[in-house]
Amino acid sequence: MNIAQKTLNYVKSITAQTISAAGSGHTGSSIGASSIMLALFKDHYNFDISDTDFLNRDRFVLSAGHMAPLYYTMLSLFGFEVSLQDLKELRQFGSKTPGLPEQGVTDGVEATTGLLGQGIANAVGMAIAQNMMAERFNSVGFPIINNYTYCLAGDGCMQEGVAMEACSLAGSLNLKKLILLYDNNDVTVDGNLNLSNRENVAAKFKAMGWKVITVKKGNDYKACSNAIGKAKRANGPVLVIFKTTIGIGTEKEGTSAIHRSPLTSEQIKVFNEKLGVHEAFYVPNDVRDWCMASARRGRLSHETWNQELAVYSNSNPELYRQFLQFFDRKHFSVEKFEKNASKWDGLSGRDMNKLIFDEFADKLPQIVGGTADVSTGTKFAIENGGNFLAGNKRGRNIHFGVREHAMAAICNGIALYEDYIPVCGTYLAFSNFMLPAIRMAAMMKLSVIYVFTHDSLLVGKDGPTHQPVEQLGQLRSIIGLNVFRPCDARELLAAYHVANNRREPMAICLARQEMKVCENASYKDAINGGYIIKSAADADVVIYASGSEVALALEVAAELKGHKVSVVSMPCIELFEKQAPSYKAKVLQKNAKVRVAIEASNDNVWYRYLGDDGIFVGVNDYGKSGDGEIVYQKAGFNVKEIAKKILKSL
Amino acid sequence: MNIAQKTLNYVKSITAQTISAAGSGHTGSSIGASSIMLALFKDHYNFDISDTDFLNRDRFVLSAGHMAPLYYTMLSLFGFEVSLQDLKELRQFGSKTPGLPEQGVTDGVEATTGLLGQGIANAVGMAIAQNMMAERFNSVGFPIINNYTYCLAGDGCMQEGVAMEACSLAGSLNLKKLILLYDNNDVTVDGNLNLSNRENVAAKFKAMGWKVITVKKGNDYKACSNAIGKAKRANGPVLVIFKTTIGIGTEKEGTSAIHRSPLTSEQIKVFNEKLGVHEAFYVPNDVRDWCMASARRGRLSHETWNQELAVYSNSNPELYRQFLQFFDRKHFSVEKFEKNASKWDGLSGRDMNKLIFDEFADKLPQIVGGTADVSTGTKFAIENGGNFLAGNKRGRNIHFGVREHAMAAICNGIALYEDYIPVCGTYLAFSNFMLPAIRMAAMMKLSVIYVFTHDSLLVGKDGPTHQPVEQLGQLRSIIGLNVFRPCDARELLAAYHVANNRREPMAICLARQEMKVCENASYKDAINGGYIIKSAADADVVIYASGSEVALALEVAAELKGHKVSVVSMPCIELFEKQAPSYKAKVLQKNAKVRVAIEASNDNVWYRYLGDDGIFVGVNDYGKSGDGEIVYQKAGFNVKEIAKKILKSL
Repeated sequence: MNIAQKTLNYVKSITAQTISAAGSGHTGSSIGASSIMLALFKDHYNFDISDTDFLNRDRFVLSAGHMAPLYYTMLSLFGFEVSLQDLKELRQFGSKTPGLPEQGVTDGVEATTGLLGQGIANAVGMAIAQNMMAERFNSVGFPIINNYTYCLAGDGCMQEGVAMEACSLAGSLNLKKLILLYDNNDVTVDGNLNLSNRENVAAKFKAMGWKVITVKKGNDYKACSNAIGKAKRANGPVLVIFKTTIGIGTEKEGTSAIHRSPLTSEQIKVFNEKLGVHEAFYVPNDVRDWCMASARRGRLSHETWNQELAVYSNSNPELYRQFLQFFDRKHFSVEKFEKNASKWDGLSGRDMNKLIFDEFADKLPQIVGGTADVSTGTKFAIENGGNFLAGNKRGRNIHFGVREHAMAAICNGIALYEDYIPVCGTYLAFSNFMLPAIRMAAMMKLSVIYVFTHDSLLVGKDGPTHQPVEQLGQLRSIIGLNVFRPCDARELLAAYHVANNRREPMAICLARQEMKVCENASYKDAINGGYIIKSAADADVVIYASGSEVALALEVAAELKGHKVSVVSMPCIELFEKQAPSYKAKVLQKNAKVRVAIEASNDNVWYRYLGDDGIFVGVNDYGKSGDGEIVYQKAGFNVKEIAKKILKSL
Repeated sequence: MNIAQKTLNYVKSITAQTISAAGSGHTGSSIGASSIMLALFKDHYNFDISDTDFLNRDRFVLSAGHMAPLYYTMLSLFGFEVSLQDLKELRQFGSKTPGLPEQGVTDGVEATTGLLGQGIANAVGMAIAQNMMAERFNSVGFPIINNYTYCLAGDGCMQEGVAMEACSLAGSLNLKKLILLYDNNDVTVDGNLNLSNRENVAAKFKAMGWKVITVKKGNDYKACSNAIGKAKRANGPVLVIFKTTIGIGTEKEGTSAIHRSPLTSEQIKVFNEKLGVHEAFYVPNDVRDWCMASARRGRLSHETWNQELAVYSNSNPELYRQFLQFFDRKHFSVEKFEKNASKWDGLSGRDMNKLIFDEFADKLPQIVGGTADVSTGTKFAIENGGNFLAGNKRGRNIHFGVREHAMAAICNGIALYEDYIPVCGTYLAFSNFMLPAIRMAAMMKLSVIYVFTHDSLLVGKDGPTHQPVEQLGQLRSIIGLNVFRPCDARELLAAYHVANNRREPMAICLARQEMKVCENASYKDAINGGYIIKSAADADVVIYASGSEVALALEVAAELKGHKVSVVSMPCIELFEKQAPSYKAKVLQKNAKVRVAIEASNDNVWYRYLGDDGIFVGVNDYGKSGDGEIVYQKAGFNVKEIAKKILKSL
């Protein structure tokens, strides 16, 4: 047996053993795709185990996250910080080898995956980031950014809409150095793929502008390696379809019965016998050496790259300076804009954002992004940024098309590639198309900014489908996402300050309509998430509000003549909740006789502050189509009506 | 000018006038697609304005909802209850002509649309429902169910993942009588389509198993009509691509500038001049007559169908009996199962659901559905229902593939077709892929049931991506959706009772793990949404909980020996909130010294009941990969720890 075959056998055996030790996990594809992964790691994947974060490394995303056991075996064999002991602890609490790959937990893992399809979109994002950097910084003779992005997906990933959206965009943009490895075993959890999918994937991808390579012997290491080699020479995105047999070599190979079932110890014995493996959790020296040769190749390649970069820095001093500063955030501070904030008073939320975002994007070249075909509606684009297109990879404005979900998942990929600040936008009502990807951004602590305009019933005429109600609550429910709904430009500046300073995603929710001026709105205080915008000593009434409703709350306070009314602006509840208890108590003024929250949403979060007898002026039904102001008023957002309610409670 | 051309001109003119009167709306495609719509309504669409709900009518979904003005013009001209006055009131509060089509508001409108892509998936659902009924009830010589499903989509719709998922499934299932009309004007809101999409749509659809017809002269009525006629003769799903010019005949035709802009009164004048229209909001008699001939054709076709049905009822008495009973819900009552509920005690949530759902599905033939490739995980399928496949349209189990979003949107279409009860399932953590479609089900009050298993951190080893935290709150935030999280089989029976009796969607959230027995769990009380499951007079402590946490709450109560502890099971907060204030007060027992809510979620809804000093034992971070029980305990779901917290507060 040659060393490649021997190694492949050990990969299969060890992987099956880890799953059996864990008592759960996806045996089928972990074994079935082992030749693809071995070919990739051994012959193509460029990594440096001594510096796994170096910029020009290849990126790899395991979109079919359930193949994690195979992934961990590869990482272990090729020298990443994953020991045999770690493999034994697969899926155990606190181990380095969680059930699905988690970025930040396991050395070498580039993205948290497991939600099928998302990983493909992440890879598309990485390729966009790579293509953009290459275009911007490579110079003749110095391809300093020339890494590949690989993604391994299964039959399930290829059915997900988010993946199809992303692949459609990748083809339209003719992304280079993007290679999608498709483990096509024709079996899914519930049975044969043809129960739910009989499409011609190759023809479909060709129609989307991809080059397609089909490998009939997908369980053959050499065939896999040759195909990947061929894919690397293409001049656009490539799909490599590997025809494989799920769970190859096990009793139930080729059937869905092996998809999620660990082998029993008896089955492991038989399987090992077949593979010529006679030890448990053991890697023979020749196998280890053969793999580590690739790790050394990667180390060397990184060193060469460092040398090239040194020469590049001499020949291209200005480019090199820009390159070094590209990801620098500190040299931009939002604060200085504060004193001129009055020039933005009275604008609509989307208009003030346009102007403020321009300042931000102008200073930070790592900001890239776009909208899901609503740039004219959100009024959000990078002025003079140019369009990122197949023929202009230097452009900073990405036209995502009407593909909200992929837009968010692609932005995750851009942020994962390196420390970009991807910004993407659409109407708030459509944010729920993006939730799975936003959740992943929060889980991975990625600096993605979402600009959501049209943030309330005041959208009006487009009716209930376009009027957000639940969306604020749904976004706020995502752990680790900051949701900012500013009442004016000062608070919006605070949002950008926070976004630029915290490694967490941020959703900025903005009004479509003009914003009334809120006296005492404060940049500095807004950074705390909530603050008293109109104070009254020993208040009888305290009103909490966000966004457009802050002005309304101030009007209500004015209407309640003769009463001591305090108003709290609460642009970001997540940040407010992080403040010291004493600060929170001071702001919340729970001793007031009546506590009121006003927000054009149905978010129960306000009940945190209202006690048993508080009043939540929110939305409890879908809006109607009609003039925005009428819809808003009819829903109860009306000074007199609210004042009356409060007086009744006093 | 022939009458077809004259009518087309009036359609364009009136449509443009309505948008200008409204002051907003999408002029471009409303004018650009007018020939397609006229061809459809005049020559093909089978409807009966005297009985717009008759079963065998053709279905039409305007997926490109922003063409609503054109749609309303057609409905008006062809005799639906949309007057010229209604057209003048486009987008006005309370009018019959909202900004985007709303089912239930406008006569003839089959689905609420406006979220791009969703309508395509709705149409696929309608075609599934139609194909299934045809297979079940048609007999030789009696094609009593033979209607078509038409859907009009634009370039935006065709980019959405939900649409691509649905189309992939439609091709795989070779759905008959499904015709997707694609208004391909190559212009989207932000500019030319090629900014974001350069794929070959025809080739892509062929790869997905569709027949494709391309109409080069998409603005020509006759060419459009011929193509639709050809599409009707196909033996599977058909995409008709109409190459059109957006805003044809206006100054800005062919550009994105006309996409959303109303024409000014001056522009209307010029446009009318060109069209030979000299009146405002006026329909000449010959135009009206020409259109109404089609309405009469539809009326006649319905009468013929009624006669055929009468003959069918004689020749096929048994089939006819089944046909009449097919949508009957009353003959099935859940209650009788209650007394035997103990046989389900101790099972896992998904296992008890399997058995109960079987009873339900066995009695109600209108139940159809499936999962997004997790039938083995959710343990949910219709026993002996057979698979719905290209070759077996009688099957009741639909293998949606890993296409969660389309699954939900397709179920909306099945429910819209007629009074089916579509049931679909996946893991709770994936529910947020489906939210946009669930929201539409709630808005349209459709009887869709979602079965979400793996409903908490106890999922364990698959880690944070698969452990739901925010999902309960996100679902509960959807207005009009009932979210049921039962603690045992009795409560689960209540969920099915409610689902069968209310025309609202229902999400049932179920544990993967075995459920402890909860003494006093009650079917009858659960129908109220919340009830005292363990009572204590003048309780010191009241604990609210749902699902698996009810058993935990009961254990905590037992641990708090010497204190008067009452426990409230709250399987469905939406239903509970609808109860009388006195009932709610009695159950909530707000006088208790300490109020506690326990739920493995971060849903702020519990703060409604907790007052200022209550304790919410919830989840405030993503879970870890590891044994479910360990993950659960570490997150604080631990009898001793909770009891200690409560004692501290007492």
